[in-house]
Amino acid sequence: MKHSAILLVACPDRKGEVASIADFVYRHNGNILHADEHADEESGLFLMRVEFDPKDFALDLADFGKHFAPVAENFQMKWRLAQSSQRPRMIIFVSKYDHCLIDLLYRHQSGELACDIPLIISNHPDNQPLADFYKIPYAVVAITKDNKNQAEERIQALITEHTADVIVLARYMQILSNNFVNRYPQRIINIHHSFLPAFVGARPYHQAFERGVKLIGATSHYVTEVLDDGPIIEQDVVRVSHRDTVEDLIRRGRDLEKVVLSRAVRLHIESRVLVYGNKTVVF
Amino acid sequence: MKHSAILLVACPDRKGEVASIADFVYRHNGNILHADEHADEESGLFLMRVEFDPKDFALDLADFGKHFAPVAENFQMKWRLAQSSQRPRMIIFVSKYDHCLIDLLYRHQSGELACDIPLIISNHPDNQPLADFYKIPYAVVAITKDNKNQAEERIQALITEHTADVIVLARYMQILSNNFVNRYPQRIINIHHSFLPAFVGARPYHQAFERGVKLIGATSHYVTEVLDDGPIIEQDVVRVSHRDTVEDLIRRGRDLEKVVLSRAVRLHIESRVLVYGNKTVVF
Amino acid sequence: MKHSAILLVACPDRKGEVASIADFVYRHNGNILHADEHADEESGLFLMRVEFDPKDFALDLADFGKHFAPVAENFQMKWRLAQSSQRPRMIIFVSKYDHCLIDLLYRHQSGELACDIPLIISNHPDNQPLADFYKIPYAVVAITKDNKNQAEERIQALITEHTADVIVLARYMQILSNNFVNRYPQRIINIHHSFLPAFVGARPYHQAFERGVKLIGATSHYVTEVLDDGPIIEQDVVRVSHRDTVEDLIRRGRDLEKVVLSRAVRLHIESRVLVYGNKTVVF
Amino acid sequence: MKHSAILLVACPDRKGEVASIADFVYRHNGNILHADEHADEESGLFLMRVEFDPKDFALDLADFGKHFAPVAENFQMKWRLAQSSQRPRMIIFVSKYDHCLIDLLYRHQSGELACDIPLIISNHPDNQPLADFYKIPYAVVAITKDNKNQAEERIQALITEHTADVIVLARYMQILSNNFVNRYPQRIINIHHSFLPAFVGARPYHQAFERGVKLIGATSHYVTEVLDDGPIIEQDVVRVSHRDTVEDLIRRGRDLEKVVLSRAVRLHIESRVLVYGNKTVVF
Repeated sequence: MKHSAILLVACPDRKGEVASIADFVYRHNGNILHADEHADEESGLFLMRVEFDPKDFALDLADFGKHFAPVAENFQMKWRLAQSSQRPRMIIFVSKYDHCLIDLLYRHQSGELACDIPLIISNHPDNQPLADFYKIPYAVVAITKDNKNQAEERIQALITEHTADVIVLARYMQILSNNFVNRYPQRIINIHHSFLPAFVGARPYHQAFERGVKLIGATSHYVTEVLDDGPIIEQDVVRVSHRDTVEDLIRRGRDLEKVVLSRAVRLHIESRVLVYGNKTVVF
Repeated sequence: MKHSAILLVACPDRKGEVASIADFVYRHNGNILHADEHADEESGLFLMRVEFDPKDFALDLADFGKHFAPVAENFQMKWRLAQSSQRPRMIIFVSKYDHCLIDLLYRHQSGELACDIPLIISNHPDNQPLADFYKIPYAVVAITKDNKNQAEERIQALITEHTADVIVLARYMQILSNNFVNRYPQRIINIHHSFLPAFVGARPYHQAFERGVKLIGATSHYVTEVLDDGPIIEQDVVRVSHRDTVEDLIRRGRDLEKVVLSRAVRLHIESRVLVYGNKTVVF
Repeated sequence: MKHSAILLVACPDRKGEVASIADFVYRHNGNILHADEHADEESGLFLMRVEFDPKDFALDLADFGKHFAPVAENFQMKWRLAQSSQRPRMIIFVSKYDHCLIDLLYRHQSGELACDIPLIISNHPDNQPLADFYKIPYAVVAITKDNKNQAEERIQALITEHTADVIVLARYMQILSNNFVNRYPQRIINIHHSFLPAFVGARPYHQAFERGVKLIGATSHYVTEVLDDGPIIEQDVVRVSHRDTVEDLIRRGRDLEKVVLSRAVRLHIESRVLVYGNKTVVF
Repeated sequence: MKHSAILLVACPDRKGEVASIADFVYRHNGNILHADEHADEESGLFLMRVEFDPKDFALDLADFGKHFAPVAENFQMKWRLAQSSQRPRMIIFVSKYDHCLIDLLYRHQSGELACDIPLIISNHPDNQPLADFYKIPYAVVAITKDNKNQAEERIQALITEHTADVIVLARYMQILSNNFVNRYPQRIINIHHSFLPAFVGARPYHQAFERGVKLIGATSHYVTEVLDDGPIIEQDVVRVSHRDTVEDLIRRGRDLEKVVLSRAVRLHIESRVLVYGNKTVVF
């Protein structure tokens, strides 16, 4: 993969943002590899993602902010600069179901996911061998009704110790406290095994079976305080029929969950997802 | 299309139903063209659809019931015999949106839908020219807040006069009374413009836009007393993105609505849908 | 639909194109509504589509070229300016099959296709009533083995008389001469009823049936001298099974052909398709 | 999974096959769990799959053939009886690409694939650690231009030693000799990384990129003497765009290859695939 720098911008929509940003990159000898933007009419918000080749860039990227400040201030931009050379750190949470975990680990190893995985956290020891095979540290933090707070503190300490840019809940079957969730806004990615907003909550495949739907889905979203309600990053569905038992739905859903979660993770890692309101722009 | 007879059966699941039915058809010199069945474990129900060639059938199909009675009684079967030569009569309800109506009329004319359409009923005169083009009678029954009951009586009279085996709500924007609905159990087909059970009720595209989903859907179902809750016959989805405005969702959804409704109507007309509980088997 | 101006650009890829174009629009008080671009590594080509709001634009769009010339020359740009207020003129060619024609006419009438349709040309009179219903002139140019050249001359005269920006072959079952094709480069859109490059040529559904494929497709492409080989604009597929006869494939394929062709036509009309080599960029 | 017996039948199509088979099962106290059949009009062939519960079956399944012979002879049936309790033995061939292998091994371990895997054969040692993790024996048979015949003999000996009901080529990059292929008719399953019959042969993703298709595909088929031409079991596609480089196509294709191959393998293992001519019926 080529080295690239990615500028993410959000600001009130008015004339001249594209020109100002493009001009800034060009003036400092950056080559725009790809640019995409979106103006949300309802909120009057302008969102942009500019990927440029920093090879001949005249500025030290560490000083980018200092030089970009006048443009940013002029347009009241909130912005962030990502660099493909700085791989984000992703901590994976998992319980017993291993299909999403194995999928993420394989994609990581094969180079599809350009991130580092400093740690896997689980409330069960079951997936330790898998972590060992891929040589990723694996910490077990058992959770009971009585130790919930301490467990979260322990998890919190582990995250602080290993540092994480993003937390991925790969079928982690514990509900995180609001306190925890609020520490990582737009940085916790979950996979829910239904086509949200249908079948919120527990046992969505059973709910789908009961309702007799002809398609089942999976949804990857950022975690917010409201259960299964955060901004959706990616969704997909697969056709089912009356022949499919609940067990068939679960089996077929696993394939959906894997690809939907891994797509969402990849989009996040490549800085392609911008949140506005309770929605996402996926560039 | 070849002439065929279709036997639909529902009964408690026990050994020997398939053999008994197949034997009955064979004994009377019928050639089974296609057979499909489903045993629902939860309810212990057995459902079967047998399509056979009645050309050399030894019985007059009008007397089928008399001869089939011993088999039916032995297995406590509920059954129904359809014949492809007896085209079902379909009355279409429509309001102003014409995309589903035009789609159904075109498919009917081209031979895709093997039914007769004795009448279109609408609460608006707008689609009269379309009905005229396809030479289908078109009755306007205007509905106001004050005449709702009389309007339904008028509609009811029209249906009785023209006789209908199935009623298709092709984006008919009036809610039918329970009284009306209960007169036509499993015989009223609706198209709802969302992936049910997500976005029940009014303005589902607006709801989908608000929620920021990455796929929109359409659902065709039998109408029951509970709004948008009847047995689902067919569903499909299409991918959307942040670029799609509500207007785009509406436009793209039209294509979904058309194909989902027409598939459901075709399945129903070909006697491929069996309802059990609040679900369907689609053979 | 809002009024907008669309600038399409193709040039050798080098630094500064985005900045120069964005700056040009901004400097003349245009508001960029949407911009998209693509750099093709293999050919070193840069392609861009910029949609801007011309409401407060400081230049008369008729003089756009004069003012844009320095930018264009600097980057060796080939460019074109489209305006949503200038609806392209589309002439539809059709034979007997009417499903694509009716679909295009309906979408045109409902406002989905922002173009004018000055004429339908057919080698058969069959679709005259449909054209009449939608109030579009319909010219029959019968084609026999012996009058092929004269027929094309007659067609050519009709096109000249009515003027066409784009010609759509809506299941037109005659092969156009190279001479004809070369007069309208990237301006003739065809629908082929297979997933190209599989099943080139005649009777693709029969070929698909013979091969036992599990999906059938449709492909819309620009017509070039080589049969079924032009740049692909849009494709889609649908799942089939051993139960589907050739007639079923044809029936199910019709739905594919309609949506694939209409999507391609819409993309073309909105100036979203750029051809490079034998491929398309679809913005 | 419940224990079941599966009877597969192929015979000339005439009246009474369904009745005779259903009656045979019923007479011996078998409970039909599922039956499906297909009559191919062109070839006049009748194909059937009957799954029944052998729990109370009056015959020893080892003697099934002796008792079924009169029915079979009467209808000139070719038939086969499979039992879910007799897990088929699957040998996997692989080269360096590991994505299909890891997918099959994971599904096998998780219980999705009800088969035994006595051996993995590879022309490279690379995937030994993966085989070790899943505790499957792994044999390396290196292949050079000069040892091709001996290598195949060695492979043949390994297969004989371990016995295989089915051989799966999980991106095995060697072409098998006709001699080898003919020893295992309808028992070698390959995954080809294109939507066959498009892009036969080498480097199909490069071919797809060159042609500018808007969808890429994968096809799983039985291997015959003609390259990439055997009966197709399963196919699927995914949407791509001009943004996708060849590397993107390869990456996205991997996901397709995995699911298409594993679906085909599962269908084969469950005795759901019947070959007739160069096509398959998938029950």
